Amino acid sequence: MNILVVGLGLIGGSILKGLKNSGHHLYGLDLNDETLETCLTESLIVSKHAELNQMDIVFVCLYPDDAVDFIMDNQMSFKSGSIITDVVGLKVAMMDRLTITRSDINFIGGHPMAGREGRGFGVSTAEIFINANYLLVVENVEDKFVQILKEIVYTLGCKHIEVLDAKSHDDIIAYTSHMPHILSTTYMSCDRFDETRHCVAGSFRDITRVSDINADLWSELILENKDPVLHEIKVFKKALEALEAHIINDDNQAVIEFLNDARQKKLLL
Amino acid sequence: MNILVVGLGLIGGSILKGLKNSGHHLYGLDLNDETLETCLTESLIVSKHAELNQMDIVFVCLYPDDAVDFIMDNQMSFKSGSIITDVVGLKVAMMDRLTITRSDINFIGGHPMAGREGRGFGVSTAEIFINANYLLVVENVEDKFVQILKEIVYTLGCKHIEVLDAKSHDDIIAYTSHMPHILSTTYMSCDRFDETRHCVAGSFRDITRVSDINADLWSELILENKDPVLHEIKVFKKALEALEAHIINDDNQAVIEFLNDARQKKLLL
Repeated sequence: MNILVVGLGLIGGSILKGLKNSGHHLYGLDLNDETLETCLTESLIVSKHAELNQMDIVFVCLYPDDAVDFIMDNQMSFKSGSIITDVVGLKVAMMDRLTITRSDINFIGGHPMAGREGRGFGVSTAEIFINANYLLVVENVEDKFVQILKEIVYTLGCKHIEVLDAKSHDDIIAYTSHMPHILSTTYMSCDRFDETRHCVAGSFRDITRVSDINADLWSELILENKDPVLHEIKVFKKALEALEAHIINDDNQAVIEFLNDARQKKLLL
Repeated sequence: MNILVVGLGLIGGSILKGLKNSGHHLYGLDLNDETLETCLTESLIVSKHAELNQMDIVFVCLYPDDAVDFIMDNQMSFKSGSIITDVVGLKVAMMDRLTITRSDINFIGGHPMAGREGRGFGVSTAEIFINANYLLVVENVEDKFVQILKEIVYTLGCKHIEVLDAKSHDDIIAYTSHMPHILSTTYMSCDRFDETRHCVAGSFRDITRVSDINADLWSELILENKDPVLHEIKVFKKALEALEAHIINDDNQAVIEFLNDARQKKLLL
């Protein structure tokens, strides 16, 4: 198959690298010609020039707004029967705006639960997909196309593919992904000690890791998922206030139960 | 030197293992005879029987209350000129209760910023100290004894030793250690989705790691450090509410600034 990756940042670059030895013909599209040159030199792509109407699968790895624009602007150019997928971290707003009029192209929402610190092609690596989860948002697409995309995702090294509708996807992601970033940055913003760096252990390093954040991207994700995120913040605050009350009351048994409840949930994962 | 480790759980066991090839004579004391037998078999200790009055350094690796009791109960038995240290995660309350009447023994508060999931000798390993931070709380102790203990701590593989007074120690630890555990367990307690486990990436794994918590120990630590912890919860809630307000107001610029502030602090660490 001919596979095109549009936008060779961290995720797009990693997809190209992950599919390097897949036997498929890989193409890339990026505004940065230097990146394309590098891809050609490293044999990640077969050519710097890709004809959209010859691509069987198109991974659109752009920021949310740009991804919608790219797909809408090029809608008439895609190959009949092709699969168009994205890596946008939210699906409700995006799929609402995506009014694909052609019935012979297949859009499947994609969301690789993979990443790492930093941004751009320079930090991309095939390793981020090994054993990762990958979410697919499927609405009105024939199963055979879903199967084709699943096979490609497994080729990347992903361990589990979860198929969801857009609303469930966004609700769950508010909890599993947006909240860890919100809690990490909020926590980091509270730092005011000179000695912090020498008084930390693993728990601090864990919670602050994602504070090295791509602020533009994450602000867009959080605000586009406003209602589910605000709901999760409310749920979290309520839980934190419950624990706070136990501490104020010196209620050792209640604190132990609170911590053990969390532990049980963690062990069930 | 003769070094005794009292309490061969995760930390005590790891200290023994970390000092195995140090050239010092190592002893262990534990209520579990099977653990002592294992230590003898693995040449971690030279004997199952240790005379307190022959020990140059005693690491008391017990829970807070037990550590105070052990030191007070055995105060008259320690060797003159010996160093007694502990690994209790909090210092103000402990050092208040520790009324050492002998002027010829030297208590130095210790707090290794090291650990791992699980508990007990079975999970102990010398590796937890490699490049770790180690805090020493020094009040009215001659510097030469601090230097001796520092050398042992560096022998364990620790990278940085920070010397603090008890109050500063507890204030900083409320932020750098207690809050990550509080936020992790509070976050984990909010889980209510069937699909959570398949919709997670690194940020979720990071933040939930320490939710596999020793609830008895951490409840004791949190409640003993009640005031600094409640202060940190208040600071955190205020910061979270600031971000919440930016989200409610759809204030993209303010969210970006909030995230970037956190990122700057993270990068300065």
